[in-house]
Amino acid sequence: MAYKVAVIMGSDSDLEVMRPAIKTLAEFGIEYEAHVISAHRTPDRAASFAREAKEKGFGVIIAAAGKAAHLAGVLAAHTTLPVIGVPVKSSTLDGLDALLSTVQMPAGVPVATVAIDGAANAAILAAQMLALSDRALAEKLAAHKKRLAEETVKKDEALQSKI
Amino acid sequence: MAYKVAVIMGSDSDLEVMRPAIKTLAEFGIEYEAHVISAHRTPDRAASFAREAKEKGFGVIIAAAGKAAHLAGVLAAHTTLPVIGVPVKSSTLDGLDALLSTVQMPAGVPVATVAIDGAANAAILAAQMLALSDRALAEKLAAHKKRLAEETVKKDEALQSKI
Amino acid sequence: MAYKVAVIMGSDSDLEVMRPAIKTLAEFGIEYEAHVISAHRTPDRAASFAREAKEKGFGVIIAAAGKAAHLAGVLAAHTTLPVIGVPVKSSTLDGLDALLSTVQMPAGVPVATVAIDGAANAAILAAQMLALSDRALAEKLAAHKKRLAEETVKKDEALQSKI
Amino acid sequence: MAYKVAVIMGSDSDLEVMRPAIKTLAEFGIEYEAHVISAHRTPDRAASFAREAKEKGFGVIIAAAGKAAHLAGVLAAHTTLPVIGVPVKSSTLDGLDALLSTVQMPAGVPVATVAIDGAANAAILAAQMLALSDRALAEKLAAHKKRLAEETVKKDEALQSKI
Amino acid sequence: MAYKVAVIMGSDSDLEVMRPAIKTLAEFGIEYEAHVISAHRTPDRAASFAREAKEKGFGVIIAAAGKAAHLAGVLAAHTTLPVIGVPVKSSTLDGLDALLSTVQMPAGVPVATVAIDGAANAAILAAQMLALSDRALAEKLAAHKKRLAEETVKKDEALQSKI
Amino acid sequence: MAYKVAVIMGSDSDLEVMRPAIKTLAEFGIEYEAHVISAHRTPDRAASFAREAKEKGFGVIIAAAGKAAHLAGVLAAHTTLPVIGVPVKSSTLDGLDALLSTVQMPAGVPVATVAIDGAANAAILAAQMLALSDRALAEKLAAHKKRLAEETVKKDEALQSKI
Amino acid sequence: MAYKVAVIMGSDSDLEVMRPAIKTLAEFGIEYEAHVISAHRTPDRAASFAREAKEKGFGVIIAAAGKAAHLAGVLAAHTTLPVIGVPVKSSTLDGLDALLSTVQMPAGVPVATVAIDGAANAAILAAQMLALSDRALAEKLAAHKKRLAEETVKKDEALQSKI
Amino acid sequence: MAYKVAVIMGSDSDLEVMRPAIKTLAEFGIEYEAHVISAHRTPDRAASFAREAKEKGFGVIIAAAGKAAHLAGVLAAHTTLPVIGVPVKSSTLDGLDALLSTVQMPAGVPVATVAIDGAANAAILAAQMLALSDRALAEKLAAHKKRLAEETVKKDEALQSKI
Repeated sequence: MAYKVAVIMGSDSDLEVMRPAIKTLAEFGIEYEAHVISAHRTPDRAASFAREAKEKGFGVIIAAAGKAAHLAGVLAAHTTLPVIGVPVKSSTLDGLDALLSTVQMPAGVPVATVAIDGAANAAILAAQMLALSDRALAEKLAAHKKRLAEETVKKDEALQSKI
Repeated sequence: MAYKVAVIMGSDSDLEVMRPAIKTLAEFGIEYEAHVISAHRTPDRAASFAREAKEKGFGVIIAAAGKAAHLAGVLAAHTTLPVIGVPVKSSTLDGLDALLSTVQMPAGVPVATVAIDGAANAAILAAQMLALSDRALAEKLAAHKKRLAEETVKKDEALQSKI
Repeated sequence: MAYKVAVIMGSDSDLEVMRPAIKTLAEFGIEYEAHVISAHRTPDRAASFAREAKEKGFGVIIAAAGKAAHLAGVLAAHTTLPVIGVPVKSSTLDGLDALLSTVQMPAGVPVATVAIDGAANAAILAAQMLALSDRALAEKLAAHKKRLAEETVKKDEALQSKI
Repeated sequence: MAYKVAVIMGSDSDLEVMRPAIKTLAEFGIEYEAHVISAHRTPDRAASFAREAKEKGFGVIIAAAGKAAHLAGVLAAHTTLPVIGVPVKSSTLDGLDALLSTVQMPAGVPVATVAIDGAANAAILAAQMLALSDRALAEKLAAHKKRLAEETVKKDEALQSKI
Repeated sequence: MAYKVAVIMGSDSDLEVMRPAIKTLAEFGIEYEAHVISAHRTPDRAASFAREAKEKGFGVIIAAAGKAAHLAGVLAAHTTLPVIGVPVKSSTLDGLDALLSTVQMPAGVPVATVAIDGAANAAILAAQMLALSDRALAEKLAAHKKRLAEETVKKDEALQSKI
Repeated sequence: MAYKVAVIMGSDSDLEVMRPAIKTLAEFGIEYEAHVISAHRTPDRAASFAREAKEKGFGVIIAAAGKAAHLAGVLAAHTTLPVIGVPVKSSTLDGLDALLSTVQMPAGVPVATVAIDGAANAAILAAQMLALSDRALAEKLAAHKKRLAEETVKKDEALQSKI
Repeated sequence: MAYKVAVIMGSDSDLEVMRPAIKTLAEFGIEYEAHVISAHRTPDRAASFAREAKEKGFGVIIAAAGKAAHLAGVLAAHTTLPVIGVPVKSSTLDGLDALLSTVQMPAGVPVATVAIDGAANAAILAAQMLALSDRALAEKLAAHKKRLAEETVKKDEALQSKI
Repeated sequence: MAYKVAVIMGSDSDLEVMRPAIKTLAEFGIEYEAHVISAHRTPDRAASFAREAKEKGFGVIIAAAGKAAHLAGVLAAHTTLPVIGVPVKSSTLDGLDALLSTVQMPAGVPVATVAIDGAANAAILAAQMLALSDRALAEKLAAHKKRLAEETVKKDEALQSKI
């Protein structure tokens, strides 16, 4: 049976930033759940969600948060599943605070960090992990990669009429 | 009965940075406990320590951590006691990662952040909080402030022979 | 008799950023005064306000300023009351200047710094300090913490219909 | 048959930084190969390595580079395997250049970035990915996590005699 | 026969930023081609374009990209032609990520980096390189420099009526 | 009668950084006093020194401090004499905190900021100010400028034998 | 005879940022000239302006520029008059580039740097320098300082009706 | 007749950083001159050197400077030859100040900036420019590029015995 992916946001205000993750997972046919769980406001839910994620069928957890973005690290503290962190830009410091808070994890507890507001890439990275044991998904990823290239070629052709 | 202060470090390698906090608490006659508790390696201990801190007689928690310094925020998530965060400089980024990870807490769960490696000030700040309901401690703080001034004046006098 | 909290702003342009502090103090039933006092334009008022704060019944001072934000440090120089600093984002450098000017205090004179524009947290932190000697306030803080968690759970439920 | 992990370094001077990755993979019993391949000096080798990695039995690629660290991104451009990036601190800018060059990947081609010089975490993250389809490895990760916690508890006990 | 200049963009969204480069090349009468080629989405095209650039008559390659801007470096890896990098500001970090990813190239493979969004200067720099073996172009550059000075003098005269 | 220059340091540990200021003032024959006065530990002395500086014969105040470097701003708040700020690098953040705390002064109260650890330039700048009404000093400055140029020319000559 | 102040801008687009400098000089009754002179587009004018400034009656030069803001430094290279630098925020990097390019001058050639976009303070600083030999101006500065304080007090009174 | 390359340093203390540039030019058989010329201490020499560089047979100017590194920009202001800037790391800010001062040039006057302390790359870039009209040099560059690749392959082989 295929793994699900969890998309956890520290705040419901992160939804618009995270829609590309949800959309991308859907396009790959990956089952997912999305939740608002705060490392600081609902720490026990964060802990229990992470602890139970594996037995509930999740294979990867995507965690998005802004400012002092502890969410991905806090989830990673409670599970051995891979946790992907999406630093979210907020109103100050242009996302640098969320990036450093997410990526600079101490030895022992990694967070797989993608770009600031990099929600689509978080979903692709989750798909890449799951594709290690899912041949059909691996083929979808290969097709997706080919499509990206073709779209870029088309954009190059379109550019010629704009310059 | 007077409150105790907890000095929590994310790693035992933080001890030398945090000694001034311990020393300062001792000088003020404040009872303290010091512990290594990691937000990422021992998240349940972090949670339980913070949850039980109040009933165990702690009034203030000082938390020191480096890199993606989640410790202070994780403790603050589990208690309504004031939590003082000490960002610790590590081998990269000159402490900026720890500073932003500690101070940029989202609305609802504050961390009272002091300077990078600012252990002594964490202790003084804890003393200031406790002194709100401890007149003797308030007097010690006033004396300490006076002493700081006097020492600076002496340093000014000593400077005259060095220039 | 309960302590009051002072909310000091370096400029009246900081008022909108600081409203959440005032609102939060009011919600907790904490008496407060708000003032425009500039460390640079009215340094004597800053000094005298801080020096007299304790005897006028203040227990905590919240100080908000932008750019080279000296206000919190200057107030802290004149009192042993805990001073909470709110770095305010201005038109350049995205708040980094105010953050560093507020938090990087030298040993001896701490400022309890919260996030850039983190006015609500400044008020909660003040409440946490006062609650050390005010059981009713401690209960309000516990209730507030519970409410934060419940609101987050509700947001999670609401999220399910948006994805 | 189990996947291998590739540990690619942009320069042989990165070896000491990357030893913890190699050591950790060995401890988990994960087969690995380590190579010096430069995105800029041997771009064709980088491309061909990434293109052929899957059919050669690799499941995850770890890529470490400093300064304008393009290596992880260049490898990711040529494979749908998950690529883990380790930004390496060099003599200027304290690792910030390598971090941003590694993590800020554009939509479509993610790199799972860990902390600056975070070699051990790169290996643990690789293990977490492989453990999705390797129960024995998953158990090793759980044991490793438990051991991390126990070591931290022991460090806490040891701390008591040092303070 | 005169060299052509290639203007390569990592994304068609970079076109507006790069128009001044195209316009400036045209003003200098330099033949150019503009293309969308992504280092990450079309890495083989990037490699082959750079490898064949010289024999196709290009003398200089201008490469513009944002975020983890690998494009200039990837092109430079495959050619000994001078490559000029234009870091493009994107929605986070104010262009710093693109600047560091472009300029901090390791020894052996330089990228001639201009200012963030500095498209016009990229074209002028390309012209300066080509003018080393093109006397007419050298004279155009001298005239352009003179015109810049004259325009500034006129702006100074115009300023007098505005103050 | 000629003005004196005050060289104020926030800490006696700033002395070695500030020696070039003292040495340079002496070379120009400018009378000076050097003092340790802390904005945070001896705020009243800082205020009274600045308030009385003019009538005591000072024309310029040089103020050096590290971390949250409030000293120059605090002195400037109490005088209309020009205040020159020297940000001092400390153990974290490479001087950026002191620079921003010194230079980003709000409208109304300027600090003339020189480079991090730029003590010699602070003295030269003070001399330039005083030279506006001191012809002999103006001539010394002109001679100093000429000497700087001559030394550089000599260094160029010396370079020829080293390459 | 009183000195004039020169207000030099690197570009006419800096005019709106610099209006407060011009307005403030006018308020203090200081004669001024404003010019667009570019360190890079009109380097000879920059050199000759600075070289002749003193004999043309200027006492202080204010120089405003953005990005790689060399203007103040270039002017300072050609004169022993005090040069005040105003770093101007441009479309990238939030003014940090202009600040560092202006303030980090090497030993021997200082620039008195004020805050990013700090035009008013540049004028006040110029006035403070001139007031060293102009008693009437000194009195205006004292009055201005008093007015600043009074306005702040009024803002404090006005605040009371807004909270 | 072949062009010479000028290697200009702002200070003789930059020599060790710049040796790789000199060594690389020599290896390519490119004639060069090295000089200490300061934009701030010897501005007239800087201007005249740049103005006369072309007629003296120089084709490219390499300029290295630290802190507020104006040298490359100042030279570029006086010539239409391509100017390559090498930002030099100094004792504060880890080279960021020199990088931004060198690369963020305003429209009209480009500086081809390489990495902080990137002297070797400056020389290679100069060679690439000159090779546009020097077939023998172009072949040396191609051979150099091949050698870089071969050395990296050998380092990979050597790595196998170290892990």
